[in-house]
Order: sequence, then C-alpha cells, then structure tokens
Amino acid sequence: MSRIVYLNGEFIPEHDAKVSVFDRALLFSDALYEVTSIIDGKLIDFDNHMKRLDRSMTELDYPKLLDHKEIRDFHKALIEKNNLNEGIIYLQVSRGVAERDFNFPDKKTELTVTAFTQKKDLVNNKAATHGISVMTMDDLRWHRCDIKTVQLLYPSFAKAKAVKEGFDDTWMIRNGYVTEGTSNNAWIIKGSVIFTRPADNLILKGITRETVAECAKDLGYKINFKSFTVTDAQNADEAFITSATTFVTPVIKINDNKISKGEPGKFTKALRERYIQKAREIAI
Amino acid sequence: MSRIVYLNGEFIPEHDAKVSVFDRALLFSDALYEVTSIIDGKLIDFDNHMKRLDRSMTELDYPKLLDHKEIRDFHKALIEKNNLNEGIIYLQVSRGVAERDFNFPDKKTELTVTAFTQKKDLVNNKAATHGISVMTMDDLRWHRCDIKTVQLLYPSFAKAKAVKEGFDDTWMIRNGYVTEGTSNNAWIIKGSVIFTRPADNLILKGITRETVAECAKDLGYKINFKSFTVTDAQNADEAFITSATTFVTPVIKINDNKISKGEPGKFTKALRERYIQKAREIAI
Repeated sequence: MSRIVYLNGEFIPEHDAKVSVFDRALLFSDALYEVTSIIDGKLIDFDNHMKRLDRSMTELDYPKLLDHKEIRDFHKALIEKNNLNEGIIYLQVSRGVAERDFNFPDKKTELTVTAFTQKKDLVNNKAATHGISVMTMDDLRWHRCDIKTVQLLYPSFAKAKAVKEGFDDTWMIRNGYVTEGTSNNAWIIKGSVIFTRPADNLILKGITRETVAECAKDLGYKINFKSFTVTDAQNADEAFITSATTFVTPVIKINDNKISKGEPGKFTKALRERYIQKAREIAI
Repeated sequence: MSRIVYLNGEFIPEHDAKVSVFDRALLFSDALYEVTSIIDGKLIDFDNHMKRLDRSMTELDYPKLLDHKEIRDFHKALIEKNNLNEGIIYLQVSRGVAERDFNFPDKKTELTVTAFTQKKDLVNNKAATHGISVMTMDDLRWHRCDIKTVQLLYPSFAKAKAVKEGFDDTWMIRNGYVTEGTSNNAWIIKGSVIFTRPADNLILKGITRETVAECAKDLGYKINFKSFTVTDAQNADEAFITSATTFVTPVIKINDNKISKGEPGKFTKALRERYIQKAREIAI
C-alpha cells in the first residue's frame, strides 16, 4: 500500500507528492527538518522538536514560523492514515518556490511544508541488543551544525563510507575531538561519569540528548558536558549514541578498537530502558 | 510565456516540472550543478563545465557519469525552445529518488537530471559599467567547496545579508584570507600583478576563472595565485570578480573602503573586454 504524504495542506499518495524544480530546497539546500519518533502511535517530545524548528527558522531569517497546533494535527492525521504504530515522522520546511537567485525571495513566498512517515522498530531493535561499530572521519561540515538544515551530504557520504567498510556509522572528528555521529549525538562513560560534547555550533543539540540527560540524572549518573577524543572513547568503559530514531544505542567498537569487552554496557542498557519508559510517559 | 524545462529526458512547461519529495536533492542536498552562460545563442566553455561536473560526481561516488553529447543536445534544445539569445542554462544532477536513508541508495537508482534557462544581460550589464560593492563575512561553509554541490544555504544567506545592508555581494573570509564571493571568484590587482587565491578545497575552481587567467596572460599581465586579506584588497589598485554569469565585473568598494578612487579599474575593463571576445571565439 502506498503511503499518504503531507504536502502543503494536502494528503496525497506518495508517488504523487512532488515539488517544483524551482523549490529552494533543491537549488540552495534552503530547508529545515525535524524527525519525531512514534511509539504506540504517539508522538515523542513533539513540543521540543517544534521549539527547535522555530529556532532553526529564526536563525535563517525565515519570514514566518509555522503553527505548532497545525503541525501536530497533520502529524496525528499521518499516523492515522498510515496506520503507524512505531516509527518516525519526517517534517521538512523550505523557503519555497522562486526563480533561482542567491538573494532570498519575497517574504510573501509560501513556504513548502512536507511530511512523511517511516515504519521502524524503535523499541525492539537489533542494534540496541547487539551494539554498533563506528569508524571515524574528519568532520568537514559547515560551522552551523546547530541549525537542523538538509545540508546532509557529508553525513550521508560518511554513513555510506562506513557501511561500505563494514561499520554501522561514522563519528566525525574536528580539531581532535569527536563532534557527533552522522545523525546522532556521541557519548562515553568512564567510571561513574557520562561525557558528551557541550552543545556548541559544531553539533546538533539533540532533543533525545536532552531527555537522555534527564534520564541519566534520574538514575543518579553524573554528566560532564565535555568534549572527548577518539582515544578517550576507545579507553572508555562504555559508549553510546542518542537520536530520535536510535534512542540510546550502545557503541561496542570504534575503528579497530573494542570498547571494554566489545559488548553493550550495563549503564547504557539501563539508560535505554529508562529513556523508553520516559518516552512512553511523555508521548502525546 | 512559460519556459520549457528539461527533466529526465522530457521537455515540459516550467509549472509542470516537479520532482518527488523523496528526491535526495531535497532530503540530503545530494545534488551537483553547473551553470553555463549563453551569448549569441551559443554555449560558453561547455566542455570545461562538463569536465568539472564529472569531477564533482566522481568525488561524491555517483554511480555513473552523464553523457556529454546528450547534455549538449538538450542544452541546445533548451536554447531553441526558449528562444534564448543571452543568459544561462542551469543544470542539476541528483542521486535520485529513494526512501530516506543516510546510506546511499542502490547504484541502479536513476539520477535526476534537471535543466532550465534564465534570460540575463551578460555583456551589457549595469554592474560591469558601475562596479559592485562587497561586504565581508566569516566563511562558515563546509571544507569541500571545490565540489559544486547545491549546499548553497550559507552563500545564499550571505548574499541576502549583503543586499539587506546595501551591498551587492559578500566576500567570505576564512583564517584571515578572502576565499571567494557568494557565487564568484575574487581577484585583486596591485601594480602590474593580478592576485587570486590558489584553487584549494576551500573555493570553487571557476571555469571562468581559468579562461580569465588565460586572457590575463594574453594581455601580458602577471598572475600570482596567492591568497590575500581584506586589507590587501582594500589597498589594491583594482579588484574584480569572475563567474559564468558576471564574466569579469569590477569591485569598487569593500565594506566602508573604496578601492582606489571607487571606480572600475582600467585593467579590469580591458580584461573584461578580452574575456568577452574570447568567450565569443570559443562559443559552440
């Protein structure tokens, strides 16, 4: 069965969902996005995703913000129309369709708003049980990774390279420190302390990252928002990633080095369980 | 009258030219482009644009290259169908339509190929007669600006900021040196020597830049491929930009500082004339 996709106020079969070749998302990567996960047919952390979308649009001088209630309504409609119990909703906003010009178009140009669902096993996931391996690559992305734009060519390239070389993902390195994964935040545990990079301009401030930090506190773990190197990570007791689609997923190998025994760590497991419990509590 | 646009082998009215919301150009900025200028209904430097497109596609592991003869044929057809005497043809290639996944899609996925025309006065152009003013901004782009991708959000943002603040364009600065304009290469003249940054990973190796360098030699100018600072530029005798759409266009002001008397320089004028003459000679 064909999915139903949302496009500018309409619900249409996925194969008919098309945008103009003059859309600024295509010509200038002038588009922002959010991915909200769904468990039990409910939205996780929806309000925080909307707040981040507002921030992205404001940073890039978008002429107006979108109405959160309206977005929530079409998210709910997509869940229902696509019979989605578990997975994600991808939401994208571009500055709209205009004659190609580096200058921004007239402020009255209609934004292009698209959303679609993807079914995924988020809770019972093989990667969570077995852990993932990551390789490392220089982080060559632009210097405003805090804005969630579709400029994802380098992360996509890095992911493809990882898969080609037998890894699950890539951790990117800038100035000697790990920034993040291709679509997730990176964490390590050393003794009783969890480390993750402070949210600067070089990483995305993950919504899941924030909720996981709360969960860690619930469990009595100490968090140190401090950058770490690949060597720090290889010598850590545990390592994991967080994102809307992976929740908390253990990392068991970095390049050729196993983390500890090369198995998912117990703190990581406990944190994942606590996160899933919390996600279910806050789902709407 | 509506333009005729090329899309995957078909010629269609611009308002019907649409691509799937799952196109990787939209979701991952996974697309490359070239802009070829047209004078007297003929293509300028077409072969060199195609060579650069091949290089971009190779650098990003595109599964196959496009046939240059075929591209030339639909460029010629677009010129004819749109009655284009002077302007540009924009050509874009994306990795195609696939379910959203950071990993690259199956190598058999059809590339999306789009091309459209824009009428522009290239030869008799106000900016060339009067010169342009530029402001400066930090260059926050990714570190592979040598690949001509659609990741143009920052240059577009910088152009919009320039226009808002009363300038014509922005020159971007990385590590204290001018990299380039938002869609053009930057040059200065000091005494009898022309300076332009060497083509490294932080700028696009302009096709027009190469042809202009040849023209400069034809005119007996000395070229030094060496990076320069904003102060160097402000103290230069002349300054100019080059690109497929601006050819050679004088810069007369950088931030609050006039270049010399704040008028287009005579060497720049001569170089522009020589370039236009050469472009006409090599047009096909």
